[in-house]
Amino acid sequence: SNNFFLLCGPCAIEGEDMALRIAENVVKITDNLKIPYVFKGSFKKANRSRIDSFTGIGNEKALKILRKVSETFDVPTVTDIHEASDAAMAAEYVDVLQIPAFLVRQTDLVVAAANTGKVVNLKKGQFMSPEAMKHAVQKVKDAGNEQAWITDRGTMFGYQDMIVDFRGIPTMRQYAPTVLDVTHSLQQPNQSIGVTGGRPDMIETIARAGIVNNVDGLFIETHFDPANAKSDGANMLHLDNLEGLLSNLVAIRKTVNSL
Amino acid sequence: SNNFFLLCGPCAIEGEDMALRIAENVVKITDNLKIPYVFKGSFKKANRSRIDSFTGIGNEKALKILRKVSETFDVPTVTDIHEASDAAMAAEYVDVLQIPAFLVRQTDLVVAAANTGKVVNLKKGQFMSPEAMKHAVQKVKDAGNEQAWITDRGTMFGYQDMIVDFRGIPTMRQYAPTVLDVTHSLQQPNQSIGVTGGRPDMIETIARAGIVNNVDGLFIETHFDPANAKSDGANMLHLDNLEGLLSNLVAIRKTVNSL
Amino acid sequence: SNNFFLLCGPCAIEGEDMALRIAENVVKITDNLKIPYVFKGSFKKANRSRIDSFTGIGNEKALKILRKVSETFDVPTVTDIHEASDAAMAAEYVDVLQIPAFLVRQTDLVVAAANTGKVVNLKKGQFMSPEAMKHAVQKVKDAGNEQAWITDRGTMFGYQDMIVDFRGIPTMRQYAPTVLDVTHSLQQPNQSIGVTGGRPDMIETIARAGIVNNVDGLFIETHFDPANAKSDGANMLHLDNLEGLLSNLVAIRKTVNSL
Amino acid sequence: SNNFFLLCGPCAIEGEDMALRIAENVVKITDNLKIPYVFKGSFKKANRSRIDSFTGIGNEKALKILRKVSETFDVPTVTDIHEASDAAMAAEYVDVLQIPAFLVRQTDLVVAAANTGKVVNLKKGQFMSPEAMKHAVQKVKDAGNEQAWITDRGTMFGYQDMIVDFRGIPTMRQYAPTVLDVTHSLQQPNQSIGVTGGRPDMIETIARAGIVNNVDGLFIETHFDPANAKSDGANMLHLDNLEGLLSNLVAIRKTVNSL
Repeated sequence: SNNFFLLCGPCAIEGEDMALRIAENVVKITDNLKIPYVFKGSFKKANRSRIDSFTGIGNEKALKILRKVSETFDVPTVTDIHEASDAAMAAEYVDVLQIPAFLVRQTDLVVAAANTGKVVNLKKGQFMSPEAMKHAVQKVKDAGNEQAWITDRGTMFGYQDMIVDFRGIPTMRQYAPTVLDVTHSLQQPNQSIGVTGGRPDMIETIARAGIVNNVDGLFIETHFDPANAKSDGANMLHLDNLEGLLSNLVAIRKTVNSL
Repeated sequence: SNNFFLLCGPCAIEGEDMALRIAENVVKITDNLKIPYVFKGSFKKANRSRIDSFTGIGNEKALKILRKVSETFDVPTVTDIHEASDAAMAAEYVDVLQIPAFLVRQTDLVVAAANTGKVVNLKKGQFMSPEAMKHAVQKVKDAGNEQAWITDRGTMFGYQDMIVDFRGIPTMRQYAPTVLDVTHSLQQPNQSIGVTGGRPDMIETIARAGIVNNVDGLFIETHFDPANAKSDGANMLHLDNLEGLLSNLVAIRKTVNSL
Repeated sequence: SNNFFLLCGPCAIEGEDMALRIAENVVKITDNLKIPYVFKGSFKKANRSRIDSFTGIGNEKALKILRKVSETFDVPTVTDIHEASDAAMAAEYVDVLQIPAFLVRQTDLVVAAANTGKVVNLKKGQFMSPEAMKHAVQKVKDAGNEQAWITDRGTMFGYQDMIVDFRGIPTMRQYAPTVLDVTHSLQQPNQSIGVTGGRPDMIETIARAGIVNNVDGLFIETHFDPANAKSDGANMLHLDNLEGLLSNLVAIRKTVNSL
Repeated sequence: SNNFFLLCGPCAIEGEDMALRIAENVVKITDNLKIPYVFKGSFKKANRSRIDSFTGIGNEKALKILRKVSETFDVPTVTDIHEASDAAMAAEYVDVLQIPAFLVRQTDLVVAAANTGKVVNLKKGQFMSPEAMKHAVQKVKDAGNEQAWITDRGTMFGYQDMIVDFRGIPTMRQYAPTVLDVTHSLQQPNQSIGVTGGRPDMIETIARAGIVNNVDGLFIETHFDPANAKSDGANMLHLDNLEGLLSNLVAIRKTVNSL
């Protein structure tokens, strides 16, 4: 359909019911709009600010839910890995292995992901320039895997804010298909309570700016009850707002494709 | 036409011929595309990094050229002022008085501009948040002038780079019609030779992201010979590329208007 | 005495009594510590965020108070100017003309100040690199005035914070004697209420880091009642704390001079 | 001796001879100046920008060299770990386990380090506020280990520069003993060639500003031949310059202690 693709789901796999419920909804919407869809869910959250934050329901349990989503709705899935030893394990269950932004400079991890033969989705570090992602992509290719993606999730802008540099999109698309992570880009980190804040009111603003600039994919975290999500509730999109958002974006992309 | 408007012209008025030549070209393009057009030109450049930079051809001479452009093509004009005493003088010749980004905190200057009854175009300081522009707009309104505009020209991002924060557009549109200054937003200041650099290859990227987010106007500096322009050549749009850019933007805005 | 010098006083001249009271106290302290002292006070505040902020008691009235302070205590004085036309007027009353950070790129203003033959204290713009101050100093020298100073007052670090880059001190000392403005460097601008906040608890931290790195002078705003000062109360030093701070700094500088 | 302590050594353990040679030199200098000394060396470099950068001579081989340095000169040692599984292994050989800045949010890694009972040196992420380090320290303490240190290695300042925020030192000292990593703080990342640059000319500036503000320790990478060091040569201190630097710092600290 020449459309953008979508990585979308909850931040963390909190359980089977919630995962299936979210997937079902997103599948319906994306089928309708002819948007290629990849279900996203983290099987563990290894990088919380505070030790008492939610970290997961158990690795294997969560990975099995990802597989079940894939089989139930016939969609590919993506999850993030945190140690080289996660790569082979997660590759048994999902189609895309995502390298978290903080970890994208860890060569062992990137190479372990590349060696599985799966797509490797490299998140741009908040501390990295778009140009520096060239080297991260090269590590995947040097391991013999041509399927690298880049995902931008915003750049540090003072201690408590992030900003998206849209000059980065054409820059990074020279190296690999580039995804814009809309919801994490709107995080406001380092808040005094140790829980990241956000600006979910700006989701459509950032998404439109990416789509109009030919970003290959979007990454959006969603939940039917963001206020009670076990992580990142402050910047998620409410599931009820997903269809309206995507409809607008599809119309914009159609125009862009015609230019 | 429910279209965005355009502030466009050379950085500085270098002479009558170049001003008329640029205006004639832009008028033709914008008439065709039904874009309301305001001719832009500085009558003096008061804030160069280096003292040996070009500062102008003489105030009155330049202002008279602005008037001639206005009369010849029946378009309004905009110029920037630098001291309170410039306001009344420039108001004799132009329709919009622009407050430079470095000077937008100077209350005397803003009030002097407001008192002329002309439109006051307030550039957001590179050091200011979008939210802080609320106070600048209020200064214009408190002087009894309801015609304030805001123009974003990028925000400091380290010493030698600027970034556009697109969250600022919906934020500032709450206070006043908001313009995106595409070419200055792509400056790269503080270069070691004392002349500002730029990224003109990113003009369409930044312009699209603004247009898709309902910015009210665009500000673009253009020249038929940027390499030999007397100021800001490093980030100008070549006049030959203006029509293609604007055609794309009009198509995008039409789609956005239909959502 | 091979000591650092001190620019110190209230933010704004609020009246004769408060100016004399502050000067008397600081003179006593600095005489004792053998610190060359320049009394600082603004005769108008032209760059407030909000129009209802305090702007001054009247230009001539305030300048006469500056002269009275100078004559009473036999100390030089410094004030900031905002338009070229202020330069000659202020030069009648004070010894050092200070160019505000937002205005240091305004060539007319810098040249007007230089032409008075007074010392010209150039504040580094929050948006400027240390290296870029070379050009500002050159403008003073090109006007035939060799007495330029540079003052660092912090650099933009996200919308609501400032940071001091101490690499800038040795860099800028290559161009001119360099002053560290401790209190403004601790401002936190763009706060939602339109009044700048601050971190006065960090005054000694920043001052020490400057003194140990051979900064030529310090700039400190002080008041006997910061909470009720008419401007910048949020980041001033309480007058009661000045002597203790300066004693520590003198001891540190003495050690540094001996290395 | 009430002095600051020093973590110092080469970036990477390139071999036994170079490690012993550097250690011998630093031991002599620090013994003389009564500076408690911890020998620093990385046993692997896991986070290079480019895959063809040097990553190490082999884990066990390098760790054995660290032990040999410790035994030869009777000094404690520190090395950095990158995966939870490194913790127990490295703890067999060294006294302090260091968590790299990019990895300080990885709870598994921090807890694994804490569980060894060794001192855990937490590097502040370039993307983190000083205040956010409170949560990292808490993770160590919650694991029953009271021996956490914090090390500041600079904060992102635009894509290609770093800055040290000295307000962070008193802030972080509230949570744990705080070290200033002088040489990494002067890195200039994201350079176009994929190798980090630096400003080694500013080492003494940054070190002095830390010492005068009561930082508990300093971290300095040194080499007898920085230009040929296998990593981070661009910002290392030449071993020949270490004694002069430390002598100055000891004198400054002595004065500060007497205040």
